[in-house]
Amino acid sequence: MPDPRFFDRLGPFALREVASVAEAALTADANSDQQFEDVAPLGTAGPKHISFLDNPKYLGAFRKTQAGACFVSPDHAKQVPKGCIAIITPTPYRAFARAAGMYYPLGQLIDMPSGGNPIDPTARLGRDCTIGAGTVIGPNVEIGESTRIGPNVFIERGVVIGRDCIIHDSVTVSHALIGDRVELHSGVRIGQDGFGFAQDPPGYVSVPQLGRVIIGDDVKIGANTTVDRGAGPDTRIGDHCRIDNLVQIAHNVELGRGCVLAAQVGISGSTKIGDYVVMGGQVGIAGHLSVASGVTLAGKSGVTHDLREPGAYGGFPAIPIREWRTQVVRLRRLTKKREMNDG
Amino acid sequence: MPDPRFFDRLGPFALREVASVAEAALTADANSDQQFEDVAPLGTAGPKHISFLDNPKYLGAFRKTQAGACFVSPDHAKQVPKGCIAIITPTPYRAFARAAGMYYPLGQLIDMPSGGNPIDPTARLGRDCTIGAGTVIGPNVEIGESTRIGPNVFIERGVVIGRDCIIHDSVTVSHALIGDRVELHSGVRIGQDGFGFAQDPPGYVSVPQLGRVIIGDDVKIGANTTVDRGAGPDTRIGDHCRIDNLVQIAHNVELGRGCVLAAQVGISGSTKIGDYVVMGGQVGIAGHLSVASGVTLAGKSGVTHDLREPGAYGGFPAIPIREWRTQVVRLRRLTKKREMNDG
Amino acid sequence: MPDPRFFDRLGPFALREVASVAEAALTADANSDQQFEDVAPLGTAGPKHISFLDNPKYLGAFRKTQAGACFVSPDHAKQVPKGCIAIITPTPYRAFARAAGMYYPLGQLIDMPSGGNPIDPTARLGRDCTIGAGTVIGPNVEIGESTRIGPNVFIERGVVIGRDCIIHDSVTVSHALIGDRVELHSGVRIGQDGFGFAQDPPGYVSVPQLGRVIIGDDVKIGANTTVDRGAGPDTRIGDHCRIDNLVQIAHNVELGRGCVLAAQVGISGSTKIGDYVVMGGQVGIAGHLSVASGVTLAGKSGVTHDLREPGAYGGFPAIPIREWRTQVVRLRRLTKKREMNDG
Repeated sequence: MPDPRFFDRLGPFALREVASVAEAALTADANSDQQFEDVAPLGTAGPKHISFLDNPKYLGAFRKTQAGACFVSPDHAKQVPKGCIAIITPTPYRAFARAAGMYYPLGQLIDMPSGGNPIDPTARLGRDCTIGAGTVIGPNVEIGESTRIGPNVFIERGVVIGRDCIIHDSVTVSHALIGDRVELHSGVRIGQDGFGFAQDPPGYVSVPQLGRVIIGDDVKIGANTTVDRGAGPDTRIGDHCRIDNLVQIAHNVELGRGCVLAAQVGISGSTKIGDYVVMGGQVGIAGHLSVASGVTLAGKSGVTHDLREPGAYGGFPAIPIREWRTQVVRLRRLTKKREMNDG
Repeated sequence: MPDPRFFDRLGPFALREVASVAEAALTADANSDQQFEDVAPLGTAGPKHISFLDNPKYLGAFRKTQAGACFVSPDHAKQVPKGCIAIITPTPYRAFARAAGMYYPLGQLIDMPSGGNPIDPTARLGRDCTIGAGTVIGPNVEIGESTRIGPNVFIERGVVIGRDCIIHDSVTVSHALIGDRVELHSGVRIGQDGFGFAQDPPGYVSVPQLGRVIIGDDVKIGANTTVDRGAGPDTRIGDHCRIDNLVQIAHNVELGRGCVLAAQVGISGSTKIGDYVVMGGQVGIAGHLSVASGVTLAGKSGVTHDLREPGAYGGFPAIPIREWRTQVVRLRRLTKKREMNDG
Repeated sequence: MPDPRFFDRLGPFALREVASVAEAALTADANSDQQFEDVAPLGTAGPKHISFLDNPKYLGAFRKTQAGACFVSPDHAKQVPKGCIAIITPTPYRAFARAAGMYYPLGQLIDMPSGGNPIDPTARLGRDCTIGAGTVIGPNVEIGESTRIGPNVFIERGVVIGRDCIIHDSVTVSHALIGDRVELHSGVRIGQDGFGFAQDPPGYVSVPQLGRVIIGDDVKIGANTTVDRGAGPDTRIGDHCRIDNLVQIAHNVELGRGCVLAAQVGISGSTKIGDYVVMGGQVGIAGHLSVASGVTLAGKSGVTHDLREPGAYGGFPAIPIREWRTQVVRLRRLTKKREMNDG
């Protein structure tokens, strides 16, 4: 279940209410008065939780789910496991998004310190912390010893920051657990909700992003870089990672230990990066991929498929760098030859 | 004429003064004492306005302009329409930039709240608004009911924000009209002047950017994203658009309804995007293009020409995605073959 | 030596202490009690300074160095010039990084105004300056006449800003000397330490970045753009440069006069750009390159080698634009032909 340090849950709600907000249908035999306490993925949901099946690749998990109720399309309604109530809708992901929004409404996202103080009285600051002017620290924040925070920073409720960190000015941190000796440069944004939504014509409905950002020890993050919190799982940045300016790390991304990301790199959602992976500037990596430990990506390369072997890669789509260099040379030669032939 | 909520106009100025600042020449018969009130494009200028002809593709508009005076090159001076005074210069755009700077000096850009208050007394906040510590709200700002604004935000003079919006911390908004249920994440910058200037050796002279940013309802904009205001026309973001982190939207860009822009996308000036266009991460689109409704652009693709048909595109320059995929495969195969032949 | 306006040096330290922190060895005849005052590159080091030889391409400078001591690998220890003490280590750059961190510890980076004032009493503001609410100005800052600074800005210790500048809100400036009539848009970050570190398993050790950012007159920098300070040399931006939003300028980069960088450009460390170079959006330039005056780079191009001739270039890797356009056309044609042949 979502970390209560960061998320307040409303409810419980009766199945009838949930189905109504989600614009989904109950079968005649469903107990529409039954109360549900939370939403959860198929794999972790329990009897008091509502889940969903959208992508048929999760049919296996669906058949074994402990969820008490589940949004499903009419096609799959009959396959609902025993003890689980089918809530029927042609758009299960959208229905789930709406139901999740009942339990975790988006409007709660900015929790200010109480009583007009810049630092909430429930925040716990370690010995020898320094806090700059204009910095706002929300409820239940914990900051370790000797951590220094510049001016005009916003640390939102429940965030934990370790010791001997340097948080420069104008940084935002929410929904995050941060290790020791971490440095966040000016303008870094950690923990905002990622790019998660379902089609809900004429627009979209946001899927509440219920994960966190977990940052290890000895990590440095460059100016104006953004790290979204997880959608349900967490976004993770391993110990000793070095991330340059203007980098984008999407929700659920995992970086192993000691990765080095040069400026303007972008990593799309749910991609897993191994240890000591090095990326040149402006590299882009598509979502839901794996990149093996020890991979090096030349600047501006674009990764569109898993990279399972360590080594150097380049180009777009990224291929082994030696092959890419050959391609560049040959393409140029080929073009010139044909120019002569045509000329 | 520019929206007076955002722009103070100086003047009027005598034609003589304008010509002098613009380093342009008047013909002997011009009434150099005539007073002019404003600058305007050829199509919308009236008798009290000064316009310019730089790009010959606007000769048609030039011949029909109602402008009272117009910067033109010596070549076109004779074609000036009746009732319009020719102001002659070899560099009409530069001259116009300098004249525009007389009416709209750049130094006025930061309007602070009066009396040392963080919130100007003329600002109108709707019921149940919350405003974070350190947030500064300029004169004549209007904010709708139940809108929540985080700490350390700067809302500049005249901005209108609808109801039920969430403006996270450290956001800047100027020269903008924003709808309802809009969410701006931390570090978003809306309304700064775009990249508009004329050569003015040894450097450049800024062309005052006199448009606005118009944002529809139900729009979400990601952390540290930048949206420049229009140069004269407005920059427009349609209802239900979803824009991710670190995206750049240049001046005069128009996004239709429900567009989805992943992180680090950049759209150059004056490009028009249809409805429900989807862009992967790091996509770049050149300026002055049109992209049809229903286009999907693969991550990292670069659009260099109009895309008139809906469908999926990829690569750089972007082509239909099926063709691009074929190209990638064949290029790789070709390279390998030739390697063998050479080897 | 580093500019004392920005950097406090600790020490002196005895050679013994330095060698111990750096995990390096002294030869039996070295005077381990000798005191050293600073670290410096081979070319500028004097008898009280400690330097290092890592890359063999600097062997020439090594043989002539005036440094009093030098980290070297065992292979080069015998070639140490007379009067210079060899400090032996298999990893001289790492050892130097650790030694430099003794003299310039990173923890000192955020100097707040004294006495809880937002503006330090030692800051000198010119006539007719305006300073927004929430802006924090550190010790010994100098700001010229009629410069206007928005709210929630942080100007760190020792920074010099000229006259008639506009610093919008939420900007950070440190370690910088800035000319007259410069405009910094909201969210600009100037002067943070660049991406400099040595391998120090299991992670990295930061190399103190001891240079500055030098910005000329009449420069404009767009929203959320980042400019790192030099690593030892300075990062330099020439007069009249125009830099758009979300651009990254790495340490030691030099831009000549009047360069124009569109949004999301990234320039890697130590690259030197001539005068009046124009870059389209999302251009990337690798590190340690030279780009000649008068070069124009099409949007999204990637520069991987020196460009010695003025003219237009495009593609990735960037080639003369005419050749790139031919390549694009021919590649597309070739693909189509082969499609037919195969089909």
